[in-house]
Amino acid sequence: MDKIYQVLERVRKEEPLIHHITNWVTIYDCANIVKVFAGSPVMAHAPEEAADMASIADALVINIGTLNNITVEAMKSAMAAANKKGIPVILDAVGVGATKYRNEKIKELLEYKIAVLKGNASEIASTAGISVTTKGVDSGNVSGDMVSIARELARDKECVVVVTGKEDICTDGESVYIVKNGTPMLSQIVGAGCMAGSVIATFCAVEKDYLFAAIAGLVCFEIAAENADKTSEGPGTFKNKLFDKISTLSDISINKMKKLEKIR
Amino acid sequence: MDKIYQVLERVRKEEPLIHHITNWVTIYDCANIVKVFAGSPVMAHAPEEAADMASIADALVINIGTLNNITVEAMKSAMAAANKKGIPVILDAVGVGATKYRNEKIKELLEYKIAVLKGNASEIASTAGISVTTKGVDSGNVSGDMVSIARELARDKECVVVVTGKEDICTDGESVYIVKNGTPMLSQIVGAGCMAGSVIATFCAVEKDYLFAAIAGLVCFEIAAENADKTSEGPGTFKNKLFDKISTLSDISINKMKKLEKIR
Amino acid sequence: MDKIYQVLERVRKEEPLIHHITNWVTIYDCANIVKVFAGSPVMAHAPEEAADMASIADALVINIGTLNNITVEAMKSAMAAANKKGIPVILDAVGVGATKYRNEKIKELLEYKIAVLKGNASEIASTAGISVTTKGVDSGNVSGDMVSIARELARDKECVVVVTGKEDICTDGESVYIVKNGTPMLSQIVGAGCMAGSVIATFCAVEKDYLFAAIAGLVCFEIAAENADKTSEGPGTFKNKLFDKISTLSDISINKMKKLEKIR
Repeated sequence: MDKIYQVLERVRKEEPLIHHITNWVTIYDCANIVKVFAGSPVMAHAPEEAADMASIADALVINIGTLNNITVEAMKSAMAAANKKGIPVILDAVGVGATKYRNEKIKELLEYKIAVLKGNASEIASTAGISVTTKGVDSGNVSGDMVSIARELARDKECVVVVTGKEDICTDGESVYIVKNGTPMLSQIVGAGCMAGSVIATFCAVEKDYLFAAIAGLVCFEIAAENADKTSEGPGTFKNKLFDKISTLSDISINKMKKLEKIR
Repeated sequence: MDKIYQVLERVRKEEPLIHHITNWVTIYDCANIVKVFAGSPVMAHAPEEAADMASIADALVINIGTLNNITVEAMKSAMAAANKKGIPVILDAVGVGATKYRNEKIKELLEYKIAVLKGNASEIASTAGISVTTKGVDSGNVSGDMVSIARELARDKECVVVVTGKEDICTDGESVYIVKNGTPMLSQIVGAGCMAGSVIATFCAVEKDYLFAAIAGLVCFEIAAENADKTSEGPGTFKNKLFDKISTLSDISINKMKKLEKIR
Repeated sequence: MDKIYQVLERVRKEEPLIHHITNWVTIYDCANIVKVFAGSPVMAHAPEEAADMASIADALVINIGTLNNITVEAMKSAMAAANKKGIPVILDAVGVGATKYRNEKIKELLEYKIAVLKGNASEIASTAGISVTTKGVDSGNVSGDMVSIARELARDKECVVVVTGKEDICTDGESVYIVKNGTPMLSQIVGAGCMAGSVIATFCAVEKDYLFAAIAGLVCFEIAAENADKTSEGPGTFKNKLFDKISTLSDISINKMKKLEKIR
């Protein structure tokens, strides 16, 4: 059995509970992508209950897409509870670099223990303290070698770093893998990046090797996207078929379609 | 003409205004399901206007899926206005049992007059004060007889209680009906439960027998789901076809497909 | 090349960044419609960063669908920044007339410089101070001549006014155009009005003649809707095909299908 498929099988069997404190734009998609992978999503962002909810969860997603002072307070409370319980925290650095406020808050959130830090090229570069031209939540131009930037950041923060894009960089600070699955359609809809973060969390909930869990989640998500693209008429139908194709991912299709390269 | 279809006809003719104070995850779906049933949804959760909006509405949905202190304040204000006007309030006990905060808030909200209290098995059991293993917003295991639990709670709170699941229990504390329509697909997408609550509110807005209104709403919603399932390729396309199939619900299909049993 | 298509071409080439402070119901749809037009949407509503985000944007959408005191504070801060930078502000008067709170807040927001003020008939009439029967966020009955009301309001506020409906009125206070594209399906889904606002903003970001930009945006959006309607089975599939059909809008189809009348 394919090693990536084995993790997917575990997700389907264990149905992990994935707590999110996320943005208001893609909150439904984040919940639904967990659900179609057979996980159990929960979204609770009141500071009064965020820690309690994290305490019964198997992984925690922190996505700062539409952060504010109250949700940041809830995030910190949930992260402390997650760290205490020992469940993985996935931090999605949405829009870092675009405003001073986000740049400050990401620093505060990085003081908690993170399993996987995720972002597009300009978000990860900004998080690493490199000055970039950003464009809201879409990636701007980054000068410099993203693999080195990601690797150093992973070593500095002692976590896995994932840089999403046409090809995704996944590193624990030593090894570096490139996930080459996916389709340009993913960049033509809102929510692909956020959903990828929730998928990574779902896989990290059942697999303690977080680098491999992140890779496995991305490969599955992006193969489903390739399958969806084949019968889509555009970005609208594509997104719905993406949900369809996740529930039918099989050992054979993953084994045949996965495009993964270890470059270090 | 089928009695359930008669209520649907009234919804389509009267186009009731359904005010929601609901969660951020399924807020679009709740609005859209009301719309495709030909109702008019409105979502307004600022404490400054919640009562005003409830005062022009025909029913009020209170869904605590992502509650916080400010929305709870707005909920109370809207519920007081709804009670004063005499319009039905549908309370969806999302996630009760998962955190202490939800357990406390549901008690405070139950001090207002409720037409229909709705939840899955573990949410309704938790609301009734029975200790259950919950799993976020998905149902956990409940030991005990759900029919008796629902019936007693309905008598205690003087409202209709609906327990959603593979089969739905509907009771006013005396009679008990089981709705057996639906498809497993409904549990494979996020939002089915929340949408069911909005549908029940839409039907209660035009039919003062709230037990029958709840049953009629559930039967229509779940028959549409069965029809959607027949031509779906997975959870993504299913959800869109669900919206399609509501607008084409007919007297004949409801009469032929409804699966309703009075067990008491 | 069709003049309307020329603006669309510029949107596709320049990929403008459209900052939104909008409602929680249709926030995804507003983002996604900008994306499928090849723009870059961003949503940021914390008062701490709203001005910063507006400062890097090419247009700003203010939609009061689910306003509260904190988002209104962020709106004012973003509008001040947008006015300072000279980028167009599109104000969508969702639900004005339904509550006293909205009636007050729209007045405060209208003290900033607006490029396009948008609403359905009862929202625009209410904003103009005319007493109307409203029905939440759906249009109620307006007695009076909407063309005159819109024209006077445009002169008074020195902005373009767009009244959406079966036919859309677009005026700068002098000229008046009627956009006659579209399909009844648009009124059978939640979000059509909000998406139209985001499209207008996207077109105003690249075309300084805001009256023509608004018209061009509406024509493109509604031709895509007509194309989507042709192969839809109902409101659910329609909405997804709407996203599909935007990415394939061509010079030929716009030229052939546009229905635009100058009545003044």
